[in-house]
Amino acid sequence: MNSSTHTQSQPAQTQPTQAQPITDEEIFAAHEGGKLSVGVDRPLASKRDLSIAYTPGVAQVSRAIAAEPDLARTHTWASRLVAVVSDGTAVLGLGNIGPSASLPVMEGKSALFKTFGGLDSIPIVLNTTDVDQIIETLVRIAPSFGAVNLEDISAPRCFELERRLIEALDMPVMHDDQHGTAVVALAALTNAAKVVGKELAGLRVVIAGAGAAGIAVAEILLTAGVTDIVLLDSKGTLHAGRGDLAGMKAEFAERTNPRNVAGGTAEALAGADVFIGVSSSTVPEEDIARMADGAIVFALSNPDPEVAPDVARRHAAVVATGRSDFPNQINNVLAFPGIFRGALDAGARRITPAMKLAAAAAIAELAEDKLSADYIVPSPLDPRVGPAVTAAVASAVRPGE
Amino acid sequence: MNSSTHTQSQPAQTQPTQAQPITDEEIFAAHEGGKLSVGVDRPLASKRDLSIAYTPGVAQVSRAIAAEPDLARTHTWASRLVAVVSDGTAVLGLGNIGPSASLPVMEGKSALFKTFGGLDSIPIVLNTTDVDQIIETLVRIAPSFGAVNLEDISAPRCFELERRLIEALDMPVMHDDQHGTAVVALAALTNAAKVVGKELAGLRVVIAGAGAAGIAVAEILLTAGVTDIVLLDSKGTLHAGRGDLAGMKAEFAERTNPRNVAGGTAEALAGADVFIGVSSSTVPEEDIARMADGAIVFALSNPDPEVAPDVARRHAAVVATGRSDFPNQINNVLAFPGIFRGALDAGARRITPAMKLAAAAAIAELAEDKLSADYIVPSPLDPRVGPAVTAAVASAVRPGE
Repeated sequence: MNSSTHTQSQPAQTQPTQAQPITDEEIFAAHEGGKLSVGVDRPLASKRDLSIAYTPGVAQVSRAIAAEPDLARTHTWASRLVAVVSDGTAVLGLGNIGPSASLPVMEGKSALFKTFGGLDSIPIVLNTTDVDQIIETLVRIAPSFGAVNLEDISAPRCFELERRLIEALDMPVMHDDQHGTAVVALAALTNAAKVVGKELAGLRVVIAGAGAAGIAVAEILLTAGVTDIVLLDSKGTLHAGRGDLAGMKAEFAERTNPRNVAGGTAEALAGADVFIGVSSSTVPEEDIARMADGAIVFALSNPDPEVAPDVARRHAAVVATGRSDFPNQINNVLAFPGIFRGALDAGARRITPAMKLAAAAAIAELAEDKLSADYIVPSPLDPRVGPAVTAAVASAVRPGE
Repeated sequence: MNSSTHTQSQPAQTQPTQAQPITDEEIFAAHEGGKLSVGVDRPLASKRDLSIAYTPGVAQVSRAIAAEPDLARTHTWASRLVAVVSDGTAVLGLGNIGPSASLPVMEGKSALFKTFGGLDSIPIVLNTTDVDQIIETLVRIAPSFGAVNLEDISAPRCFELERRLIEALDMPVMHDDQHGTAVVALAALTNAAKVVGKELAGLRVVIAGAGAAGIAVAEILLTAGVTDIVLLDSKGTLHAGRGDLAGMKAEFAERTNPRNVAGGTAEALAGADVFIGVSSSTVPEEDIARMADGAIVFALSNPDPEVAPDVARRHAAVVATGRSDFPNQINNVLAFPGIFRGALDAGARRITPAMKLAAAAAIAELAEDKLSADYIVPSPLDPRVGPAVTAAVASAVRPGE
């Protein structure tokens, strides 16, 4: 390990609310040897145990599954196992750092699945970034697991990959950077609107970032009834007059921006009610200052929010980030464990828009009784969240889904 | 579940040494929900824990691995994780039953890895039986793990697959049905020869079955100095005069059978010192009766030995099987956890013949002090085995391997 590059003690880049800053030593020590392990549900303590769990006993179970394939759902771990899949092309705010470097994040994701959803999962990181090859690979190993959580896969490839994988696999597939973020953002916005006394459907929303998360947030807000949404990419607002757009960006230039706002964040934020940043870039304080009274700012990029929370708070009534060390963390962990758990518990083969809306409503409801500018979503550590989202999602599954 | 096909109470097919027969109910109950789970090594109990194991802290580790790829060996779980890989083409004695039906066996294998080697592993079962596609698939997901245990893959495909996978992956790869069986058979034969007062190198050995296990047992016995080996396939002995042989069978027809024995088990066993059955077929009692005095019979097929142990014992001085419910179980679990653990602990990128011989010697040595006709290998439950094999294998790793 080269200590000059990453083991120096450094304070966090923005001031956290907690007393003790987290040092690099502490982070690296916590990652030594990795973060996961595979456990055995029933101990192999006697010859009899071995004869049951392995030969000759296990042959009876294998024979039964061969005769009746549905038994694999009840007598293997596959139907409760999520593959956490990444090609390492869009890892946190770090970009395309490759599969091995993405693995600590995927291990962390598995730890979250277990802790907050009681779900087993295994990281599968891929040596290929080719969409055809990724699909082919996952189809070939698909009997090993029961659901796929796509993670940290760059846009616009992630849209095609998710769409085609949903078609190719007979199991729940979700790109969490899209839909996990979207579900929690909708939950938070539902409650933030209540805090500032505005109607959700009437909000003017600006989304900086037209990648995986930005497109998915726009999509779920449209589904939830919001009509005035302006998306921005690095070249400015998406609008019908932009000649340089393709794919999802072109589609969303048509489906959003009804006032046809051109320009950048300055133009888009003038009079806006909501800023949602999922861009890994920054937005200047003077642009935030142009927002309407009772503004809502979700600066969600990790590890560096688009605008520092204390700066945003000078101009906004409600501020949220993606970080665990500030109030109002818009953290996917509120959504994905319960979404996958609910889908798997219900035997669903798809994750539908109705299941995502149900998850968002369940998350929002848990924060309702103590609602304030600093509490629009429950804490990721709130033990009620996983079971509530699981139950809401499972009951949103319709027969045949 | 269709109770008429597999949940009836049935006694075991051969008389076990233990009092209580294992019922199908018991087996199926022990497999409900599968046998494995993924655990979190450090609890996520506080926001601080989340900030370290996931965002923003984990970004430091990912960034460091991107800059210095070797850190993936120390700061992810991949370097201590074994992929237990099968395409379901040769599962126990059941044949080609497919990937889902093989999964209970692979879960059992993972349970053995953990229990006896302290090693984490994940079953990867494959929707394809094409060797090129299997290699391509494993290369694509290779950053996810640190070693590959190939399991229950049919011959002769398994030979080509293992050979090419060793070339394609920079990590230990071993087909356990070949080499795990071979290592334990060599350990057992070393001690059985002592029990009957014969020299290992001078033994006349007959191996019924020229598939994965048979070829590998012949190979390791040749390496250990045994010269008179006769292999049989379903058509009789392998010898130079057979015009119907290809691949490994043709190669071993040249390398074995120095007396050029033709015919079947009757001809091969006349005067033989050792019978090793890895054939999933049966051998008649009258053939066993033709063996030399002080005969050694290893009837290793599972779940049904080539000859019932009590029948073999009428004519042989030492009898072993592959089953956990009889004495002298030639069980791969004595070898593979320690072989992989030793290789991974030593940072080896190959599993060499020297490492396999070292494993066999370590296993044999553990049974030496109480050697008898009913105790030629330690019990699979003997807690000394895993550490002893691990140490022997690790110290057999030479620099650069």
